This record gives sequence, structure tokens and C-alpha cells, in this order.
Amino acid sequence: MHSATRGLTHRSLMTVDVDRARADTPGCQHVTHFHHSGASLMPTPVLSAVKDHLDLEARIGGYEAAAEAVDKIDATYRAIACLLNCHTDEVAFVENATVAWDLAFYAIARGFGRGDRILTAVAEYASNYIAFLQLAKRSGVEIEVVPNDSHGQLDIEAMDRMIDERVRLIAITHVPTNGGLVNPAAEVGEIANTHGIPYLLDACQSVGQMNVDVQQIGCTMLSATGRKFLRGPRGTGFLYVQRAMIEGLEPPFLDLHAATWTTPQEFEIRTDARRFENFEDNVAGKIGLGVAVNYAVSLGLDNIYERIQMLAEELRRGLSTIPGVAVCDLGRERCGIVTFSHNAFAPQEIASRLRQKGINVGTSFRPSTLLDMDQRRITGLVRCAVHYFNTEEEIEQLVHQVAAL
Amino acid sequence: MHSATRGLTHRSLMTVDVDRARADTPGCQHVTHFHHSGASLMPTPVLSAVKDHLDLEARIGGYEAAAEAVDKIDATYRAIACLLNCHTDEVAFVENATVAWDLAFYAIARGFGRGDRILTAVAEYASNYIAFLQLAKRSGVEIEVVPNDSHGQLDIEAMDRMIDERVRLIAITHVPTNGGLVNPAAEVGEIANTHGIPYLLDACQSVGQMNVDVQQIGCTMLSATGRKFLRGPRGTGFLYVQRAMIEGLEPPFLDLHAATWTTPQEFEIRTDARRFENFEDNVAGKIGLGVAVNYAVSLGLDNIYERIQMLAEELRRGLSTIPGVAVCDLGRERCGIVTFSHNAFAPQEIASRLRQKGINVGTSFRPSTLLDMDQRRITGLVRCAVHYFNTEEEIEQLVHQVAAL
Repeated sequence: MHSATRGLTHRSLMTVDVDRARADTPGCQHVTHFHHSGASLMPTPVLSAVKDHLDLEARIGGYEAAAEAVDKIDATYRAIACLLNCHTDEVAFVENATVAWDLAFYAIARGFGRGDRILTAVAEYASNYIAFLQLAKRSGVEIEVVPNDSHGQLDIEAMDRMIDERVRLIAITHVPTNGGLVNPAAEVGEIANTHGIPYLLDACQSVGQMNVDVQQIGCTMLSATGRKFLRGPRGTGFLYVQRAMIEGLEPPFLDLHAATWTTPQEFEIRTDARRFENFEDNVAGKIGLGVAVNYAVSLGLDNIYERIQMLAEELRRGLSTIPGVAVCDLGRERCGIVTFSHNAFAPQEIASRLRQKGINVGTSFRPSTLLDMDQRRITGLVRCAVHYFNTEEEIEQLVHQVAAL
Repeated sequence: MHSATRGLTHRSLMTVDVDRARADTPGCQHVTHFHHSGASLMPTPVLSAVKDHLDLEARIGGYEAAAEAVDKIDATYRAIACLLNCHTDEVAFVENATVAWDLAFYAIARGFGRGDRILTAVAEYASNYIAFLQLAKRSGVEIEVVPNDSHGQLDIEAMDRMIDERVRLIAITHVPTNGGLVNPAAEVGEIANTHGIPYLLDACQSVGQMNVDVQQIGCTMLSATGRKFLRGPRGTGFLYVQRAMIEGLEPPFLDLHAATWTTPQEFEIRTDARRFENFEDNVAGKIGLGVAVNYAVSLGLDNIYERIQMLAEELRRGLSTIPGVAVCDLGRERCGIVTFSHNAFAPQEIASRLRQKGINVGTSFRPSTLLDMDQRRITGLVRCAVHYFNTEEEIEQLVHQVAAL
């Protein structure tokens, strides 16, 4: 059911109406924004939805406003289910992508012990890897890193050879925080499903810039954030858990929303993915997230990604012509995150100078993706991410300013 | 240092300027709000601070806005430290009170095993008790409930007799969710400190309506929310952890904010209470929380509580004159939460009818405080909470409407 409706919106390739998208984006008048991999710019419908709900809370009360907005809150779950091609009862709304990932990881890893193996990727995100190390220290579980292939992406054949009956979890980042690399998530999914291994995908940097379809990818759990390529509010994220896995996963924390206290000695845990939620959330943000997801879906994720890839390649071409600049993105498939180093300026210095010119870019340093950065002998990068509402002129402007440093 | 500044603002008893507080509260023109124990009404300075930051995020970018607002974000920690009479490095900003409590509880309880004892109170909140039961099921720890004294509050002498070397934690709710009871938190603190037992206080319903001073109470950890008596935004809360305890508590979750990934096999955890935070939060809400805390502190918590207690007793008096109505609040000291049952109408029916008259009240049912409700043979209650900006006329109106049901 989801697939059919969704196919229509996602797959009919059309050109994104950039002028309209920019007219919807107040930030376009103030900044040239290439920091979507940090936090993108909320479009007006998202900003208004959040502020309108805050106004309603102040006017009639927080719980009363939530009761009036029950359809909007439900719409957020429906929007996420449509985005990911899953069921609404497989979606939990949480504070952010890290919390979403943590909830899934610490739930599934609770029973792991000495000799159990977790497979991950070279460019894994620090927050995830620190959690791996914390677990390894406590339980003796082994964390094993699948090497990269010659393109710099996770080597599928190497992963396949690493599988045995002690592999209890595959947990990788779809798009790493420090570059254009897109890991082959669906190929990983095939291996995971062939061997019946749970598969947790960190989609923090991929959701919103490309079509992330959990059926097609074959992940059993997925974590994502609202604030990046989805253009939602800060302080919003979500977790997908495949129906068949939900009841086997006891959340690390339980409260009176996740479970019901039934007798002095007993409680019952919810049977849907909302067992990973807790009672109190940022309701205004939750509503805004739903609006952001619907905004992306209405543009079409394939359309969005086509434009993003085109702009990103244009930016890479431009940057690579500048003396002293090295574009650093790996991967067979490259997405909207464009990273570079400069032989004369530190990343923070470049970001700061560009900011003075009204251009927002990010940076990424060794502690965020330590294994990958050490392997590549990189300590820091400038991280520019393009989105569909960036323009060719903005890319020229960025290239010009980097050249003029 | 904190004490001195704080003493001046908290202790100089003055009358709260109700007219000014109401002029600051847009909701006062729309509803008669007695639902502060669910979520109170944000005053204009809080609402504006949140919306202004959201506008800034949309205008210049989320990370760029956070960088510009760094002083406001710091101010939130300072405000909370002032409110609680603690140091800023003892404060973690988190999503809500439940998460704050969970982070502390699951951290401290990780090493507990069979035969270890946790002492709690009869009117303990379901979310906390479900966590106790989850831990008991996993580890064999014993959860023991301190009985109430003749006033219906935690019996200090009984608690004292229950202490032995196997008591690893005292965890109680300061003001239970289902009534006016104020548990004797400072007396509990004396016992805890005499025996060197960690003491986790759930102050979700007390912070903002009374002076909650962690030095005076002697708790070693405290959890609280923004949205209730503090009048802050939804989706905000905080955790206090006493300096001496911080480094002994490994958070249940770690990310790249709580810890730094230093070598492929190692990480270092922060040394302040922010080890319980994660990188991404609802920045606008965090700023709004600071404004809300400062708003409360500037009115004076003792002034606030004096007025709340006066109004609550007036409401109890009024309700108790109505045939068929039973006021149900326990305790030697009673706060702003006023609960009652009615012999002809279910709580939800009463709340719904009052809502139609423009009056907001809450309800509280057995599963939220199961032990206490069963002991009192209550299945549900109407929960009206008064705040300092309620008026005598509003209380008359509420009493009148309940009488007219």
C-alpha cells in the first residue's frame, strides 16, 4: 500500500522548482548555506508549523494543544512511514538520530557477550563507535571493521567473507559525516538478510537527500535526524524498527508511555515501535518534522537527489581547479557532501573566513570518524554540503571565495 | 557564591505581582488554566525566546544560530545552577524529566545485583517504578517501599529503620503526580547522607513551585522538567549530579559530546555532568528553559510557593463544601496540586465538561501511581494545580463549575 502511493511521488522524475523552494526558504535571503550536513535551513511551512504550535501551547495549554493537534502528530508518523516505505507502527519519534541509534543498539546488544561479533565500516561515526567500545569494555564483544574497497566504500565481498554464526549485528553508517561517500547499504542488506543478521543503519546524513527505502535496503533498524537534509527542526529524530523485531527488543529505558504498570510487580511493554519513545516530547518539533518530511516527499526524493548529485559534482569540479585544494570525497556513488583540504589554511580558518563572506560551511575533524581519518592521514576537512535549493551561482560564489583565500 | 546571590532573590518575601504575571501570559486571555502539573502556560518572554531562536535558525542556519546564541545557552546552565543552588558543571540539559531520571538511575544501578536494595516511596511515579521492576527482573535487586506515616507522607522513622549496608540507592518522588503531598525530601537527605547512600530525587512536580535547594535537601542527583511549574517549553528537562558523584557514574549511552574518541580502542568521558547529555538538542527550547528559570527566580521561589499554597488551600476549602466531592490530598505539607473525586462523575468526564467551560484541569489514574492508588482504593482523580498567576476569581469559577456539574 505504501509502496504504490509512494512510488508515484518518489519516482516520477521531475525538475525541482528551485525558485519556489528558495521563496519558501527565508534563509536564502540572508546566507549562502552549504551546511546542510550540520543543519539545513527550515522552509517556511516547517517554521510556521513549529511556531504556530508553540503559540497554541501558550494560548490554551500544552496538553490541550497536543489534544487539538492529534491529527498533525499522527501525520508525522504517516509521513515518516511514507518516506521510509514502512508501517506507522514501525516508527518511533525521538529526540535525535544519536538517541534513536543508541536506543536500538543498546537494546539489541544487551545480550551480547564474549566472542560475539559486531561488523561495522571504516568511516563509522564516533558516537556509534564510542558506544561499540563501551559495550566491548563491558561485555567482551568484538568490534570488527569491514575494510573499504578500491572506491573507498565498504567492501561487500570482504564483508561477506567475515560473516559467521558469531556475527550478531551489522551496524554501519549509510553516508558518513565526513564526506561524499555513500556506503552500499542495500548490498549490505542482502548479506544481512541472507544470514538473518540484524542490521542497524545510521541514515542520519542520507535521509532527506536521497530515497532511503527500508524494504529496498533491507535494514531491520534505521536511525535518522530531522535537522539535516530533511530540513526539519532541531531536536527531532526517528527510529525505524522492522515489525518482526520489535517484540524481541526490550528498550534500555522504560516509562509509562513505553510500558504500562499493571500490578505491583508487573508491567507490559507496548507492542509497537513506540516502546522506544517516552511520554514527553517536543510536540511542536514533532509536528514540524512531519511537515518537513511531507515537504521532501512532495518534491520527490529521487528528484532531490538528482539535483544534489549534479550540484555536488559541479562543486567538486570547481574546487579541484583551485591550487592547494584537494577534494577528498570517496566512494563509487557520491552524494551532496563535498569535502576538501587546503595546503595553506586550517579547516576552521576557512569556515570562519567564508562565514564572514556570508557563506556557511562546516568542518569535520579526526575524532568524528577516527578510523577513516587516520587511514587517510587527515586531521580535518572543510565540509560543504549542497541541497536542492542551492544554485549554480552559489556554487560559483563558494568556489570563487575559496580560490580567493 | 551561588547561595549569596540566590539568597537575596529567593528569600526576600514579597507579594507576587499577579497582574503583571498575567499580562505576561497570553493564555490568561483564553483559558482558566489549572493544568500546571501537566504543562503550565509559557509567559511571553519564554515563548519569544524560543520563537526568536527558531527564526534565527531559519534565517542564518541552525549551527550558526547556536554559535551566536552561545551566551544564552550558557545562561541556561547558570539559571538552573542558581535555581538549584549548585554549580553549573553539575547540570546536564536533557529532553525531559523522565530521561533525566533514567540516565541517572540506569547509570547508578548498573552494578547492582541480587540482594542489593533500593528504597522508594508509596506514591512513586510509574515511569520510575517500571524502571525499578525492569532492573529487578534483570538483576535480582530488591525494590522496597517505605510506608507512609499518619499524614500520608513517607515515614522517616520507618525509612531509618530500613537502612542497612545493602541499601544502594534511595530514589523517591518529591511531589507525587497524583496529589498535593510533599514528601519530606530534606529529612530523607539527612538519612541518605548519614549513611553515604546515593539519593535520587524526582523533582518533576516540585521545581518551579517551591524552593528546591539541593544543598538543603541533600540529594546527590535530581531530575526535573521545564514544562510544568517552571513554565518552560515542552521537550526540556535537566539533571543535577553532585560533583563528587559524577566521575563514578558512567552514562548508559555515550556519544561524541559525552565522550571523545581518542584512539581506535579508547575514549574519554567528560568530567562534568554534561556526560549525560548528547550532542544534538532542541536549542531553542534550551534557551527558552533558561528564560523560564530566570523568570521564576526573579519572582522568588518562596514568594511563588507562598501564593501557591494559599490558593491551593482556598481551592481545597471550596471543593470540600460541594456535596459528592472528596478532596484527596495527603501530606503534612501540601503544595499546589489539588485532587478530588466525585461520586457521580468519572474524572475524565469532569475534565471534559470543565474544558467546555474554558477551564483546564488534568486527571490522574491508577497506572501512574499504582501502589498509592491501590492503597487508597482510588482508580482516578481530577487533578487541578494552581500557580501563582491564578486568581481567587478563577478558583471561585472552578468551584462554581464543579458544584454545577
